[in-house]
Amino acid sequence: MRILFLGDIVGEPGRKAVRSRLHHIKTQEDVDFIIVNGENSAGGRGITPKICGELLKAGAQVVTTGDHVWDQREIVEYFPKQPLLLRPLNYPAGTPGNGSVIVDTEKGKVAVINVQGNTFMNPPLANPFLAMEEEVKRLRKEEGVKVIFVDFHAETTSESIAMGWHLDGTVSAVVGTHTHCQTADEKILPKGTAHLTDAGMCGPDVSVLGRSVESVVWRFKSGMPTRFPVAKGQVRLCGLIVDIDEDTGKATAVKRYNELLELGA
Amino acid sequence: MRILFLGDIVGEPGRKAVRSRLHHIKTQEDVDFIIVNGENSAGGRGITPKICGELLKAGAQVVTTGDHVWDQREIVEYFPKQPLLLRPLNYPAGTPGNGSVIVDTEKGKVAVINVQGNTFMNPPLANPFLAMEEEVKRLRKEEGVKVIFVDFHAETTSESIAMGWHLDGTVSAVVGTHTHCQTADEKILPKGTAHLTDAGMCGPDVSVLGRSVESVVWRFKSGMPTRFPVAKGQVRLCGLIVDIDEDTGKATAVKRYNELLELGA
Amino acid sequence: MRILFLGDIVGEPGRKAVRSRLHHIKTQEDVDFIIVNGENSAGGRGITPKICGELLKAGAQVVTTGDHVWDQREIVEYFPKQPLLLRPLNYPAGTPGNGSVIVDTEKGKVAVINVQGNTFMNPPLANPFLAMEEEVKRLRKEEGVKVIFVDFHAETTSESIAMGWHLDGTVSAVVGTHTHCQTADEKILPKGTAHLTDAGMCGPDVSVLGRSVESVVWRFKSGMPTRFPVAKGQVRLCGLIVDIDEDTGKATAVKRYNELLELGA
Amino acid sequence: MRILFLGDIVGEPGRKAVRSRLHHIKTQEDVDFIIVNGENSAGGRGITPKICGELLKAGAQVVTTGDHVWDQREIVEYFPKQPLLLRPLNYPAGTPGNGSVIVDTEKGKVAVINVQGNTFMNPPLANPFLAMEEEVKRLRKEEGVKVIFVDFHAETTSESIAMGWHLDGTVSAVVGTHTHCQTADEKILPKGTAHLTDAGMCGPDVSVLGRSVESVVWRFKSGMPTRFPVAKGQVRLCGLIVDIDEDTGKATAVKRYNELLELGA
Ligand SMILES: [Fe+2]
Ligand SMILES: [Fe+2]
Ligand SMILES: [Fe+2]
Ligand SMILES: [Fe+2]
Ligand SMILES: [Fe+2]
Ligand SMILES: [Fe+2]
Ligand SMILES: [Fe+2]
Ligand SMILES: [Fe+2]
Repeated sequence: MRILFLGDIVGEPGRKAVRSRLHHIKTQEDVDFIIVNGENSAGGRGITPKICGELLKAGAQVVTTGDHVWDQREIVEYFPKQPLLLRPLNYPAGTPGNGSVIVDTEKGKVAVINVQGNTFMNPPLANPFLAMEEEVKRLRKEEGVKVIFVDFHAETTSESIAMGWHLDGTVSAVVGTHTHCQTADEKILPKGTAHLTDAGMCGPDVSVLGRSVESVVWRFKSGMPTRFPVAKGQVRLCGLIVDIDEDTGKATAVKRYNELLELGA
Repeated sequence: MRILFLGDIVGEPGRKAVRSRLHHIKTQEDVDFIIVNGENSAGGRGITPKICGELLKAGAQVVTTGDHVWDQREIVEYFPKQPLLLRPLNYPAGTPGNGSVIVDTEKGKVAVINVQGNTFMNPPLANPFLAMEEEVKRLRKEEGVKVIFVDFHAETTSESIAMGWHLDGTVSAVVGTHTHCQTADEKILPKGTAHLTDAGMCGPDVSVLGRSVESVVWRFKSGMPTRFPVAKGQVRLCGLIVDIDEDTGKATAVKRYNELLELGA
Repeated sequence: MRILFLGDIVGEPGRKAVRSRLHHIKTQEDVDFIIVNGENSAGGRGITPKICGELLKAGAQVVTTGDHVWDQREIVEYFPKQPLLLRPLNYPAGTPGNGSVIVDTEKGKVAVINVQGNTFMNPPLANPFLAMEEEVKRLRKEEGVKVIFVDFHAETTSESIAMGWHLDGTVSAVVGTHTHCQTADEKILPKGTAHLTDAGMCGPDVSVLGRSVESVVWRFKSGMPTRFPVAKGQVRLCGLIVDIDEDTGKATAVKRYNELLELGA
Repeated sequence: MRILFLGDIVGEPGRKAVRSRLHHIKTQEDVDFIIVNGENSAGGRGITPKICGELLKAGAQVVTTGDHVWDQREIVEYFPKQPLLLRPLNYPAGTPGNGSVIVDTEKGKVAVINVQGNTFMNPPLANPFLAMEEEVKRLRKEEGVKVIFVDFHAETTSESIAMGWHLDGTVSAVVGTHTHCQTADEKILPKGTAHLTDAGMCGPDVSVLGRSVESVVWRFKSGMPTRFPVAKGQVRLCGLIVDIDEDTGKATAVKRYNELLELGA
């Protein structure tokens, strides 16, 4: 089974590019299952029910998020209605939404987990290393799921890389999100887990993390409060493609996805 | 002129690999000038005068550092004697050592600047965006240098990417260090500055940022104080190769360097 | 000369209480000069030109701020017109407003400085310890000012206490703001500088830093985004009263001000 | 029942002062139960089995700690042998030691809980607000304890004050530690819980948090690595005295303890 994951979709440019390109990639790359991170899809801040619906309609089977999950207030009430939208697993019990979902596919069950790091991240959530141990056990033992894909939303490379090793052999893939900058270290760890420290984003290429260059540079220079408009221009799609043996749940191949789209693509 | 930069060298495995491989890379890639970041070369923590001397002898022309620069106390007294070793530029006036150096080469002057980010970094230093404006102006106006290479030691992708844009057209290259994980976004910015968000490290491949996997995972799980021994095994060398037009100081080509060495290479 | 300083005024309750009470305190305590911190006076976030004007009219001679200074956008244009409103000194050159002001009084010149800490504070500003050395020197040498009052807006007790010692003997008083919680360590340091780690706030007593208890507790429990309305009910006024020998600039007496006002006071 | 709590004991000066003075305070103030925070009692960093034994022998009935709990390695093995020494409650299951203890006294059971904040604190631990809800419930329902004293080791005033309100009516007292600076806001909350945002420390008065003034100021000025020796000279003892109705567990009176001892006291 081949899974495509696309990193943090930023604003309208990111959404448009993903929606227009997803079917093509699916066909071209012979993808069975698509996961996208939508935490910045609504103007760079959060996601709305409408946008989530569009991403699912465009071909994503599961939409993950991160620290920006609640930026659009209306999303809170949407969670109970839409199990294919995830928020980080390690929020307290009782938080709207879920941190994982199991989807039935022609090639068997696929579980997706979304979990958030604790280093330099807000708010502080339950220890993601302990939370993942428990959740993976539940999915494997109680639910009998073999193919498990993890979106670990984390700031630091140490936490992201450590999570890959921590879960090696118990999940199919661990991919980082949140830094919006794709790392060049895709690999299959010794016990069969695919890993990439950060998937990168789907957003304007001439930008700082999807935001206008001028606004972010000005902020760093001046320390003054600044609006950070989503940038314009060509969009780069970043993510990961993982081949997984559905009988064992082990990754058999991994490659980074990184495509710069022409304007109007 | 072709410049090779190698990211944070971690411990004895990193040092050994760099020393044994540097001459070969220089020849193979036809490199004119070599810069290495040595902030973790002494057991993962700082650098000693002896190690700095060895790196220079092995072919590095300039050694940069970062937040770990002072980890080995003896380095403080070494700085005044060794201008080819840099500490971050944005320390206060009067701090031992320098944040930049100009080296005469057969192909003209090369300036190297080492500067540290302020986001999630310790200690807080002077604003690196303002410090760089001033230093680049000085090097270009007063010193007449055209080829300027910048090692920006920073934690977050936003600060690192913004610095590239901030300096675009005024320096030849801006490469990030500190995260120990190579990013996949090498590019030449519109006005001619080569950029890579993070160069990655030169250290053990099976590791978390060069440290033993078990120790770091245990730390994240338990929260308990932990020693983080430098890992063993095959070493990966990560960095950047930039071609620069020495008449204009503009980058004409950029590629990531990323090589996994066999044991005992 | 007797100076009254009142800590961060929070929202309408804080403003009302200060305005209604300031004249009484001035008379009762025989105060010569009044400084108030207004960084939270506009609904808890920043200050407006109108509110600043009211505070000055109510008897404050200088209004200081802190990290919330820019929360109300209109304040940016107000700064050039109103030198009695201060923003932190250690913003870059060219930032609207000033970090210090000299006021002529019947008992001689009084300088007030507002400066921001760097530990756990945003944005990162220039090193406040170095910035203060320079500014105090300028005020004493170039301007010949003896009475200098410092509002150090800082998060940690270590930075706040260290600043007191750093400036001991060169300024009349250093009082911390920002934590909204008055500390119990008022003292005169050996060389004559009055010090209090934090002045505390002027805001609703049943609150968490002036905000509604329920909202803040809910935030800590849930990690969910939350509005933090300014609390209601009785207001506590917190600050410091310092007696200063205007011939030497040394503090001769210091006492905390801490008064719980009846509703409708 | 009257409980005396003393804040973070710093180094030998703090230890000596506490040991020499504790019996006197107990008699003078007619104290029934004594709790001290010992996280900095061993040279400012952690606590040793020997020092813990001495504090207990000197009259403390329970010793709490905080983020420095593990600084002295030998303490790890001591925890299973000494239930009167606490580490923060919100470490993961399986961590050596306990976060609470119930002590039988002539006036009934007293429970002490030690818990750590998550804002600007390392390592990140489980949500202290949720952890406390559970633990307090257990102590009250399962153990039938009425008198519960909480040492909340936290950096920010917001987290510390919010915890007081969160636990109001379910415990007898919540006192903050860690900032080493006593706050002036002791109170009994509406439902009967005594609260003080920070107890302050027991350590050298001329110091920055117990460390030598010169070393800390130098660190803030230079950003250079610095040893922070425990300061010398007169010691100030800081803490809280709470009267509790042992039938209801409600606080009936609260006062800060703050005494500057003569040298050699
Ligand atoms: Fe994102
Ligand atoms: Fe994020
Ligand atoms: Fe570093
Ligand atoms: Fe490094
Ligand atoms: Fe404030
Ligand atoms: Fe503030
Ligand atoms: Fe502490
Ligand atoms: Fe402490």
